[in-house]
Amino acid sequence: MRDNQKRSLILHKKYQGKFAVSSKVSIKNNDDLSWAYSPGVAAPCLEIQKDKKHAYDYTSKGNMVGVITDGSAVLGLGNIGPDAAMPVMEGKAILFKEFANIDAIPLCLNTSSTEDFIKACVQLEPTLGGINLEDIAAPQCIEIERALKKRLHIPVFHDDQHGTAIVVSAALINGLKLIDKRMEDLSVLLVGTGAAGHAIARMLHQLGIRHIQAYNKDGAVTKNNSKDDISIQSLIDDAIIDVNVSEHATLDDLIKSKDVVIGVSVGNILSTSMIKSMNKDPLVFALANPTPEISPELAKDAGAKIIGTGRIDYPNQINNVLAFPGIFKGVLLNKIIDISDEIKAIAAYAIAETIEPTDLSVDYILPSPFDKRVVENIVNAITRHTENQK
Amino acid sequence: MRDNQKRSLILHKKYQGKFAVSSKVSIKNNDDLSWAYSPGVAAPCLEIQKDKKHAYDYTSKGNMVGVITDGSAVLGLGNIGPDAAMPVMEGKAILFKEFANIDAIPLCLNTSSTEDFIKACVQLEPTLGGINLEDIAAPQCIEIERALKKRLHIPVFHDDQHGTAIVVSAALINGLKLIDKRMEDLSVLLVGTGAAGHAIARMLHQLGIRHIQAYNKDGAVTKNNSKDDISIQSLIDDAIIDVNVSEHATLDDLIKSKDVVIGVSVGNILSTSMIKSMNKDPLVFALANPTPEISPELAKDAGAKIIGTGRIDYPNQINNVLAFPGIFKGVLLNKIIDISDEIKAIAAYAIAETIEPTDLSVDYILPSPFDKRVVENIVNAITRHTENQK
Repeated sequence: MRDNQKRSLILHKKYQGKFAVSSKVSIKNNDDLSWAYSPGVAAPCLEIQKDKKHAYDYTSKGNMVGVITDGSAVLGLGNIGPDAAMPVMEGKAILFKEFANIDAIPLCLNTSSTEDFIKACVQLEPTLGGINLEDIAAPQCIEIERALKKRLHIPVFHDDQHGTAIVVSAALINGLKLIDKRMEDLSVLLVGTGAAGHAIARMLHQLGIRHIQAYNKDGAVTKNNSKDDISIQSLIDDAIIDVNVSEHATLDDLIKSKDVVIGVSVGNILSTSMIKSMNKDPLVFALANPTPEISPELAKDAGAKIIGTGRIDYPNQINNVLAFPGIFKGVLLNKIIDISDEIKAIAAYAIAETIEPTDLSVDYILPSPFDKRVVENIVNAITRHTENQK
Repeated sequence: MRDNQKRSLILHKKYQGKFAVSSKVSIKNNDDLSWAYSPGVAAPCLEIQKDKKHAYDYTSKGNMVGVITDGSAVLGLGNIGPDAAMPVMEGKAILFKEFANIDAIPLCLNTSSTEDFIKACVQLEPTLGGINLEDIAAPQCIEIERALKKRLHIPVFHDDQHGTAIVVSAALINGLKLIDKRMEDLSVLLVGTGAAGHAIARMLHQLGIRHIQAYNKDGAVTKNNSKDDISIQSLIDDAIIDVNVSEHATLDDLIKSKDVVIGVSVGNILSTSMIKSMNKDPLVFALANPTPEISPELAKDAGAKIIGTGRIDYPNQINNVLAFPGIFKGVLLNKIIDISDEIKAIAAYAIAETIEPTDLSVDYILPSPFDKRVVENIVNAITRHTENQK
């Protein structure tokens, strides 16, 4: 076991988890009890009964987010189940607190039925101001998110899809400032078409990219070989990815003459010769964790201009924590129910613009999550957008 | 609107609810992130995947309680729904925190189906160390609690039933110390046979009381008039209540020559002449809220020796907050899954024994919930009991 894993075990045991509850008010005598609990509490209850919207005035709902999983696709560990997913959900909950002062609660649901999962989330709606879906396997995650966005009156966001897509987009926005290429001219290869890949493709399209080809475990993505995958089908139907390629095209064939390759697949799938076959000044985002699609050292040697990974120990970490705290804070404050493609693009630009143009470099295209301006910028951008719409 | 209601509204709005989340650990740099979240967090996940019991070592589960309702029987307000129930559930959650340092989360479920409610609780099990069911209408609450106790491997406790029963029992235990009567000789009338009434009857039986008659909105409880109520039927089947009374018996008839009357029904249903018809030194627990079955002043005038109510502004408040924090702390610490009749009786005696014999008086049979020894005594008693069983 690596040292950081050992240390993590020791610290998790020491604190017995990371999540705790606190009270906004002090209950020290009968007077406190009688306003915060019985009999005074009847008053806010009755106001909310009159109009559910008052829940945002008299309860914590407006700042509460459920971090909800079934444990079916946790980190790089796979389907480890809801009990074993708890350390990740607690971690996410405290990141919400630390980075955006949002009260997030971990909720690990014991079910393997998509229908039951949806039903549980629907039942949980009265308590929550928003839902952050987490670590759910594809394609169920896409079905779940779609159903919940339709049925609920609170924002729903699957972080593994959209968080990743937003931060990749921010990285691309800043990367392009360092090379002489425009969004609409870029030719992109997407390696991996799971939850994250699907969302990245949609987001790149939203940013104006018109040439995206895709490759996954079944080979080149074409009309024929993706019949059973409704999420890929929707990308084809919406003309987001270009499937006008041979079914027999290899990864070597597809990556040739691309400007950008984005891997959300498995470790070591890309070779130096592949990178060398790309267009000049290629951007390589190798996000498989913990082993990237190609090591940053090899990619650099092969001529990659800008490299991003999911790893904390390399420059340009594509870290979702850059996105979800600010996005949820922004939509909760502005009472936005639908985290639309537009909101996601606004967030991506806000993250990118946190870095001053003069500070940008190939090793610094994304701000640190500890840079407090990240959340501020996202929140301000969402607020400006909301006010402009009024 | 009364002053305390107005004040409650103002304060709830000021704080925007009462519940908040906090982090047990500080996340200030990449090093913190890498043990508390990715990649270090994989280690505790994998340990729990190997053995679910490790969740109690590496996560907050062991100290987490879900305060779960459907909003169908909130305070004295009735079926106001899950949204409007949130201020009460938040209140309960912070009482757990303030009185026993338990991390409790409010969960208001949007469903009117008993089956769906049960299913949601089953799905939530991986996150929770225990479930406190709250403000659910009878008889659904009894069915729900029974089903969950069977299906889950964490303690489940419906506070409106058992919390009330335990505190009534503690009051009775101390009350008997002030009058010359023994538990087994007592003759008790129970007015009201809903969730609380049902649990009180079972608990009194557990304490050794053998003469309990009951009266409810349909009149005297007999074999015939309770056919449709499975919870009353179970009291009859288990020989807990005596139904050997005339179907036409009135409340006046039934209360005659009783030692104790316990009301969990509606305001002003008891008269002074009824109290006068009871045995010498009667105990009157009039728990209807906010208007008791008889006002303490009238009961006193009519000769009641000891009077308890649900009201904070009279002596001897039967307040569930005396029971649930200590009971949950005790069972969580001792990893007890079944909050059995024995555990409940242990808690009742522990609450009663918090008052020194020399301090006992007719106006002081229950300790203040702010007396820190209450929780300590319950926890210690449960721990001693657990150790004796090993």
